Amino acid sequence: MTHIESGVGHVRVEVTAGSSEEARALADAAVDARLAACAQISGPITSVYRWEGSIHADEEWRIVFKTADDRLAELTALLVDRHSYEVPEIVAVPVEGGNPEYLAWVTESTRPRP
Amino acid sequence: MTHIESGVGHVRVEVTAGSSEEARALADAAVDARLAACAQISGPITSVYRWEGSIHADEEWRIVFKTADDRLAELTALLVDRHSYEVPEIVAVPVEGGNPEYLAWVTESTRPRP
Amino acid sequence: MTHIESGVGHVRVEVTAGSSEEARALADAAVDARLAACAQISGPITSVYRWEGSIHADEEWRIVFKTADDRLAELTALLVDRHSYEVPEIVAVPVEGGNPEYLAWVTESTRPRP
Repeated sequence: MTHIESGVGHVRVEVTAGSSEEARALADAAVDARLAACAQISGPITSVYRWEGSIHADEEWRIVFKTADDRLAELTALLVDRHSYEVPEIVAVPVEGGNPEYLAWVTESTRPRP
Repeated sequence: MTHIESGVGHVRVEVTAGSSEEARALADAAVDARLAACAQISGPITSVYRWEGSIHADEEWRIVFKTADDRLAELTALLVDRHSYEVPEIVAVPVEGGNPEYLAWVTESTRPRP
Repeated sequence: MTHIESGVGHVRVEVTAGSSEEARALADAAVDARLAACAQISGPITSVYRWEGSIHADEEWRIVFKTADDRLAELTALLVDRHSYEVPEIVAVPVEGGNPEYLAWVTESTRPRP
């Protein structure tokens, strides 16, 4: 099954977490559930945002998932459920190309178990 | 107000800066002006580019902003104005999904002050 | 020549490599061949994936290229050819805006040599 034959598109999904341990737990859960083909954790990063009128900065970690777009809704649901934040950042951008063999692997790796 | 009700889309905007201090100043300025909901600073990174025929590599920092697409033009103008580079890298990619509650927060956080 | 006049779009291309040395060699090769205007290397990152039924984690480096979309196929071919992995991750997302002067520089920097 190739990306083109299957007609499945792909997304790059960016998530932040408050510790490297939480990032790793979310990465493991999503990949184990076949809701993402891979997850890449980087950090620490400095997150800047406004809260009650003033600017705050926190240390966070970033997770980048690659998955098929027909798995995005279920991936989002799993992450929202497992995440310690009430409203976690989960931001998906469309993949429009790249290595077709790699994208075929992403599709295959995210098919639900029969 | 939700992302869908409001009809506002979102973008992920990547910017580079020559120091962590400059990255932090740009992040603070954009979030304070409600031109981005959040900014995430990471680095150092190694930037490779061609200049006058040979390959150069510099240490830089990366800032990733999340904002509403109706604020992108003004965010870009602020960053170009404040940045120490003559032609700073500012690259926006479209957000096509993710956590709807998070995207609604991005929209709300970037509405101009009345 | 500007981005708008030229009609060329742009992509953000993410690649992973097993060492900082390999990441740097791929970055240099692509920029030198005018297949990308710039490359940014960051890491180490932790890559999580499933292999033969269990979850694995490896240390990797990430390269982010900015290029014109009419150069993506050739950039992908060069990276697949030079990469030590059999099926390297190469994932392109569309650029929908940003600093027009920067995007014009990306276009100019990636025109094939006459």
